[in-house]
Amino acid sequence: MGSLSLILFSGDYDRAMAAFTIANGAAGAGDKVTVFFTFWGVSLLRKRKSAGKGILQTAFKKLMPCGPAELPLSRFNFAGLGPSLLRRLIRREKGQTLEDLLALAGQRGVEFVVCQASLALLGLTPQELVAFPRLRVGDVHDFLRTAKGSEVCLFI
Amino acid sequence: MGSLSLILFSGDYDRAMAAFTIANGAAGAGDKVTVFFTFWGVSLLRKRKSAGKGILQTAFKKLMPCGPAELPLSRFNFAGLGPSLLRRLIRREKGQTLEDLLALAGQRGVEFVVCQASLALLGLTPQELVAFPRLRVGDVHDFLRTAKGSEVCLFI
Amino acid sequence: MGSLSLILFSGDYDRAMAAFTIANGAAGAGDKVTVFFTFWGVSLLRKRKSAGKGILQTAFKKLMPCGPAELPLSRFNFAGLGPSLLRRLIRREKGQTLEDLLALAGQRGVEFVVCQASLALLGLTPQELVAFPRLRVGDVHDFLRTAKGSEVCLFI
Repeated sequence: MGSLSLILFSGDYDRAMAAFTIANGAAGAGDKVTVFFTFWGVSLLRKRKSAGKGILQTAFKKLMPCGPAELPLSRFNFAGLGPSLLRRLIRREKGQTLEDLLALAGQRGVEFVVCQASLALLGLTPQELVAFPRLRVGDVHDFLRTAKGSEVCLFI
Repeated sequence: MGSLSLILFSGDYDRAMAAFTIANGAAGAGDKVTVFFTFWGVSLLRKRKSAGKGILQTAFKKLMPCGPAELPLSRFNFAGLGPSLLRRLIRREKGQTLEDLLALAGQRGVEFVVCQASLALLGLTPQELVAFPRLRVGDVHDFLRTAKGSEVCLFI
Repeated sequence: MGSLSLILFSGDYDRAMAAFTIANGAAGAGDKVTVFFTFWGVSLLRKRKSAGKGILQTAFKKLMPCGPAELPLSRFNFAGLGPSLLRRLIRREKGQTLEDLLALAGQRGVEFVVCQASLALLGLTPQELVAFPRLRVGDVHDFLRTAKGSEVCLFI
């Protein structure tokens, strides 16, 4: 039994897919897996749009996507058409969409740690995030402790 | 003698240059080096455009570049002009282009592992990829095994 | 006391913020921290615009930003408006801007290593870079040596 930690900085559908394919592969083999969500990566866990303090924070919160269905592709996004085409292609080829991968990560006991500073910056509360069995809020020292205890640590 | 593994997710000319500069540096010093190609990174190894199953897969295959000469820059791409300008600048400064770096990686015995799921998604066969002395197809468990056995593992 | 190494390839304001948040967290806890600046990441350390050899190098040097204030966001850049809005939001939320994080990294003794090949490609001299207490020029072998001696190594 090993251990893996990922820091998901990106809010791209395709990069998040890579992160959770690796996370689920390791968790399925019995590894302890932690995914640390920071910056754009937090958008993956948002339930719905909400206002912020003042125009500036509200604008950022409106712009940032909520959940996998709203994430863009890092390339060939085509104003949001890209991800839905990719999703359709994945389903036809019997692969797993990001939505499938996230649900499986929850089932396999992957630990989700959400960056405290990113939440504060966007004025988000943990209640505005999707519920996962093992989701908690943490800071950079949490991340470093986990990363140092991991066999493999990747920034995605 | 050490070991290094890289996961090349990106299909950008500049990011792939960074990956193979690191890979070749390590391989030149006698390290065992493995590069795992996934998602957009697979485009680096494609020989030529080909049709897929149905309109959707064919569209993705048409869009995805084939080989280093078609890769875009992550910034200042200028509709494809950027990479050729960068290549020219590299040659004038006696540096190594991505094409040079790839050839050297082959000579230095860098192992190329292509992600099975990415090939399946795009309906690509190993025969449609450039031949490298040590190229093989592998899955996420191959990657995890290699990554755990490496001193350094990077996601690029 | 541990050790951390980061390779900062990206020249995005937000990605550099993530890099220095991690670097400063580790350095503040007593770790030995090295940040290796390569490719677009070098733009973070440039003092001012300068001409290069010939039109091509001069064009690249004009395009590449100088210092944190000129870095774009990886998303929602809005032709350069994004970073200044983010900076304002960070200040209001009592967070640290990239400028703050860089200054703190200097104070905490983070080692800055600038990629020799990237400097050569752009015709930059170390004199054209911002002075940091522990800044030096290094090559890929420097990076590999440091990375192998680190508990955690990330490519950003």
